[in-house]
Amino acid sequence: MSTHSTNNPPLRVAVAGLGTVGCGVLRLLRDNGPLIATRAGRDMRVVAVSARDRSRDRGLDLSSCAWVEDPVALADRADVDVVIELMGGAQGPAYALVERALSRGLPVVTANKALLATHGAHLAMLAEQNHAPLLWEAAVAGGIPIIKTLREGLCGNRIKAIAGILNGTCNYILTRMEAEGTEFGDVLADAQSLGYAEADPGFDIDGIDAAHKLALLGALAFGGTPDIKTLPISGIRAITARDIRFAGELGYAIRLLGVAHKAQEDALTIVGGVEACLIPKGHPLTQAPGPYNAILTRADPIGAIFLAGPGAGAGATASAIVADIIDIARSDSTAQTPVFGVPAQTLAVMPWQEVGATRAPFYLRLTVTDAPGVIASLAAILRDEAISIQSFLQHGRDPGGAVSLVLTTHEASRCAMTRATLALCDLSCVLAKPQVLRIVEDV
Amino acid sequence: MSTHSTNNPPLRVAVAGLGTVGCGVLRLLRDNGPLIATRAGRDMRVVAVSARDRSRDRGLDLSSCAWVEDPVALADRADVDVVIELMGGAQGPAYALVERALSRGLPVVTANKALLATHGAHLAMLAEQNHAPLLWEAAVAGGIPIIKTLREGLCGNRIKAIAGILNGTCNYILTRMEAEGTEFGDVLADAQSLGYAEADPGFDIDGIDAAHKLALLGALAFGGTPDIKTLPISGIRAITARDIRFAGELGYAIRLLGVAHKAQEDALTIVGGVEACLIPKGHPLTQAPGPYNAILTRADPIGAIFLAGPGAGAGATASAIVADIIDIARSDSTAQTPVFGVPAQTLAVMPWQEVGATRAPFYLRLTVTDAPGVIASLAAILRDEAISIQSFLQHGRDPGGAVSLVLTTHEASRCAMTRATLALCDLSCVLAKPQVLRIVEDV
Repeated sequence: MSTHSTNNPPLRVAVAGLGTVGCGVLRLLRDNGPLIATRAGRDMRVVAVSARDRSRDRGLDLSSCAWVEDPVALADRADVDVVIELMGGAQGPAYALVERALSRGLPVVTANKALLATHGAHLAMLAEQNHAPLLWEAAVAGGIPIIKTLREGLCGNRIKAIAGILNGTCNYILTRMEAEGTEFGDVLADAQSLGYAEADPGFDIDGIDAAHKLALLGALAFGGTPDIKTLPISGIRAITARDIRFAGELGYAIRLLGVAHKAQEDALTIVGGVEACLIPKGHPLTQAPGPYNAILTRADPIGAIFLAGPGAGAGATASAIVADIIDIARSDSTAQTPVFGVPAQTLAVMPWQEVGATRAPFYLRLTVTDAPGVIASLAAILRDEAISIQSFLQHGRDPGGAVSLVLTTHEASRCAMTRATLALCDLSCVLAKPQVLRIVEDV
Repeated sequence: MSTHSTNNPPLRVAVAGLGTVGCGVLRLLRDNGPLIATRAGRDMRVVAVSARDRSRDRGLDLSSCAWVEDPVALADRADVDVVIELMGGAQGPAYALVERALSRGLPVVTANKALLATHGAHLAMLAEQNHAPLLWEAAVAGGIPIIKTLREGLCGNRIKAIAGILNGTCNYILTRMEAEGTEFGDVLADAQSLGYAEADPGFDIDGIDAAHKLALLGALAFGGTPDIKTLPISGIRAITARDIRFAGELGYAIRLLGVAHKAQEDALTIVGGVEACLIPKGHPLTQAPGPYNAILTRADPIGAIFLAGPGAGAGATASAIVADIIDIARSDSTAQTPVFGVPAQTLAVMPWQEVGATRAPFYLRLTVTDAPGVIASLAAILRDEAISIQSFLQHGRDPGGAVSLVLTTHEASRCAMTRATLALCDLSCVLAKPQVLRIVEDV
């Protein structure tokens, strides 16, 4: 395929942030330059960049573009057609730059999930008022085109539910624990040394990154204001090799899952959240390997749509960023596709509500004294909360010592499970904090 | 979410063809009308329809739209903003209508894979010259947004390869044969009675439908003129319960697979085609259930992206059609996104070349006399074609009678396999036409 020479002027791009992703974008625009120009109908020209450290060798020739110390100043340049925000952070220069660019009617492409999960509704309004596109494919699930799929591909549908593996670090850790039988701490340390986890891993392993992404997917799916404050979040620190083994024996895998659905069609709440769950083995969501992401969407009338691919990394994220840039290059009216799928003024405030506040089945692992009568005591507590036991598993015997017991329950309310768990902790035969995980039978 | 009242005029839609899909589109525009209006920024109004039988009760109120006897006349109406072509057929009124509408600068949405696989390059040129969008998401893989994904979501990438389960009828038949151990003919008859296969099933089971879709995917992926004439096609009529059982024992499933890749980056041929293949069990492509479709795309820099969902049916197809209509409603310049991803004048002629013309591993099932020396005769023929045997499987013994033998080969050229098969047919100990299927180790 040859480059199609065109009379269209080049699209002049400013990039704020030259970390892994920023450099990936510049490399992709360079390496696939002729192909991208043919597909976009015009050349892409990076005219200005801004980053913290000017001296760092990034392996990129930046001599043809202006170096701007203050990233916010990129929005004020007369020679810029589109601003790419890759600095990250919900506040500070990222917020200032995006707000300034949109106010001036400049298109913005960003990978910043924290920014959008916090200020999404305001920025969408600003984008709309100024007829400036604000595109954010890279903010969720890396290179997987889930935002385009929900905002455009499925936009004739009523979205019923979304379930996703949204954090590659957690998926890498859980799938390795499963494959190797190793403990969380060992795999985390190894993931850190391999670059799959940050030195400060809390953002990933405590579920916060996945929650930002889920807040954005929920907003887009249901026409809501992105909301991270009410979104129920838990992470994977407490998952043990023992849990993964027991879950496996019961036919499940453990994954950090983000889910969102509407309890009723017209409800102004989204039921869902981010938590480690038991999912039937063989379900497509359990088969996303290592750092991959996967998302299942149920919608009417289409049914179920499943997307999987790399959820992070320079190449995958740059792919999503460049797709957004090409969308802008191809059209002067991308601004007519609303930032969250519907006009900003119609975005409803939709607080999140925990799954199982109504009812769900649960997995309960207990460390107990191996002695007669223990099961009777446990069973009585569950009975008093009207929780009915579905299955029961014990490994080995150690009379007088400590053994692991696993129970799965029929559908129970999460409140009843929490009360029962507290009561179990009071039993002298219960030797450690019980592990309670939700079982997702039908994702 | 409330309907957003807007000052934009409604988009006036004409629909040609009121079969399952046409009625599905009208129903979807009606049932999700307020939601679609909010997302599209304007109302959708079906102003004119054309179909063969006016008297049929479709369960739809058509009183507010004009009934037009000649579908081509829809393109001449002054009250139409977009034409939806759902009649099917590569020639005749479908072709005449689409050509006429594009010539007049009217946007067209179509589900017609045969039309595009045959006249795609000409229609793309016409669309471009007249600045009219020609959108065809519904033509490939039903509701799965694979066209948008390739044309927009991955458009910064160099596509390396595509592999897909593209025909729901074949997938339904093969997965049922696998689950039940039943023969092709029995499952086909049942599929016909259930509506999963047509009374005249050749279009599906001989691979032609999948080939149309693959021709379109190949064009979009590699910037080629859609070409069905040179595309290698075979179907699933010859697959037996025995093949599926042997394949299963060897760790494979049999699926009708469409594949496309470039032998070299700048080659002007596409290597690929549609054929029944052995794919490792557990591979995501083998797990698309029943009538589902699934597509794996490998691209640089993103890596692998996997999409799966319903490949046919009124709801899924209507979902894709309505997404295209909303794209047109949202933007006056959708025409700037090229029909096949690159400007029509740059579309290269790219003939297809069979996979394994170079080398591939194969599965070979033989019905032979159970007698001493048979294996030696077979092995000699394979040796003479430099085909090396990878594994060997025989079920049961029946001295003097007929037994099934299965061989798998290391990589061999398809020409050598064809010559060896012909030579095997000449052996008196070979009692039936050998079955030869390609093994796809690394999709």
